[in-house]
Order: sequence, then structure tokens, then C-alpha cells
Amino acid sequence: MVEQVPEDDELDEVFRALAHPIRRAILEQLASGPKSVSELAEPHDVSLAAVSKHLHVLVDAGLVEIEKDGRVRRCHLDAVPLSAAFGWLTQYRVFWEDRLAALAKLLETEDQ
Amino acid sequence: MVEQVPEDDELDEVFRALAHPIRRAILEQLASGPKSVSELAEPHDVSLAAVSKHLHVLVDAGLVEIEKDGRVRRCHLDAVPLSAAFGWLTQYRVFWEDRLAALAKLLETEDQ
Repeated sequence: MVEQVPEDDELDEVFRALAHPIRRAILEQLASGPKSVSELAEPHDVSLAAVSKHLHVLVDAGLVEIEKDGRVRRCHLDAVPLSAAFGWLTQYRVFWEDRLAALAKLLETEDQ
Repeated sequence: MVEQVPEDDELDEVFRALAHPIRRAILEQLASGPKSVSELAEPHDVSLAAVSKHLHVLVDAGLVEIEKDGRVRRCHLDAVPLSAAFGWLTQYRVFWEDRLAALAKLLETEDQ
């Protein structure tokens, strides 16, 4: 397995890119395969220019690659930078699991 | 286990909170136990006001709780909102693992 050693800047860009529902939705759309910019824009109630702006934030974070195919720009998902974000979050897993387990226990005690 | 169903707004705030190295560093400092605001500020080369601003972004995302203890404000980590971000990222694990495996294979072939 290739090891990913995330840089601070890389994490900043990935987390920033994920901090908007339209950008997360675009990644979800691309998970089922490459799409053109207009296909990506179709379900969103914003202008093509706004979608294009979001796409460029995703491109800057390395999460989307845009390839020219004649007059059409095809967008592809590159999920690799997400592994750095996932790795960073993994350090805290024990903390939220402990807290959620304590909350569950509290709810159980209250139910009795 | 208590199920976390993340709202879009919650994910926006958590990802936004994580998109700065000082905010991620503050969470790392709090992972070893509660700290006062000045203890948190100490290793950072920015003003106390700047640290306080970052802290409030973390509080808004539900990642830090500030408790008044006399004249001291003690900050505690609450990692639970990170589980929503982790859950969202998990959907993409197969994509980055496939891509990283393909890259590793390519490097192996090139080495031969």
C-alpha cells in the first residue's frame, strides 16, 4: 500500500472543499462515474457558473480531474486526497466511540 | 451504539472547522486532556485573540466545550461530531484504496 503523508496545506484544502453541500454532492455524483459539467449541474438549483466555481475548489483540492473530450469537459473523481482526511480523523475514533458508548449507557439507565 | 445521522449543516461546520492547521492543532492539544485558553495559545505564534477566534469556530461545530472554572475558561474536546465526518468519508474508502493499489502496482511494474 502506498503511504499517504498529508501536508497541512493538503488537509486544509481537502477539508475546505468538503465544507459545502454542493461540493459533497458533486463528489457523490462522480462516484457513479465521470460526468460532464452540465450533467453535474443538472440536479442543483444554482447557476452553471456557481457549479463551475465549486468544481474548481474540488480541482484545487485534487479531488476532481477535468479532462477535455472535444467540446465537452468530463469530470472524474480522484478520491486519494480523502484518505489523508480519513487518516487524520482516525486518531479521534477512540474519543467519539468512548463518548457515544457512555451516552448509550446513560440512555439505557434512564430507560430502566 | 447511538447512531449519528449527520445533517448537511453539521457536516459543513465540522469540515470547515477542520480546514485550518491551528484548529486541528487545538483538537490535538485537547486530546491529551482539558486546557485553559492560554495553555492552548502557548505553542501558537499568533495572538490570543486569533486563538480565541479559532476556538469559537470549534465551539460552533460542537467540537469544543468551554467551561468556566472561576476566572479560568477550561476547554474540553468533544469528538462526537467528527464521527459524522468520518462516516461521510467512509463511503469513498473503496475508491481511494482501489486507486492507491493501482498506483502501487504501477510502481512495482516500473521497478522491474
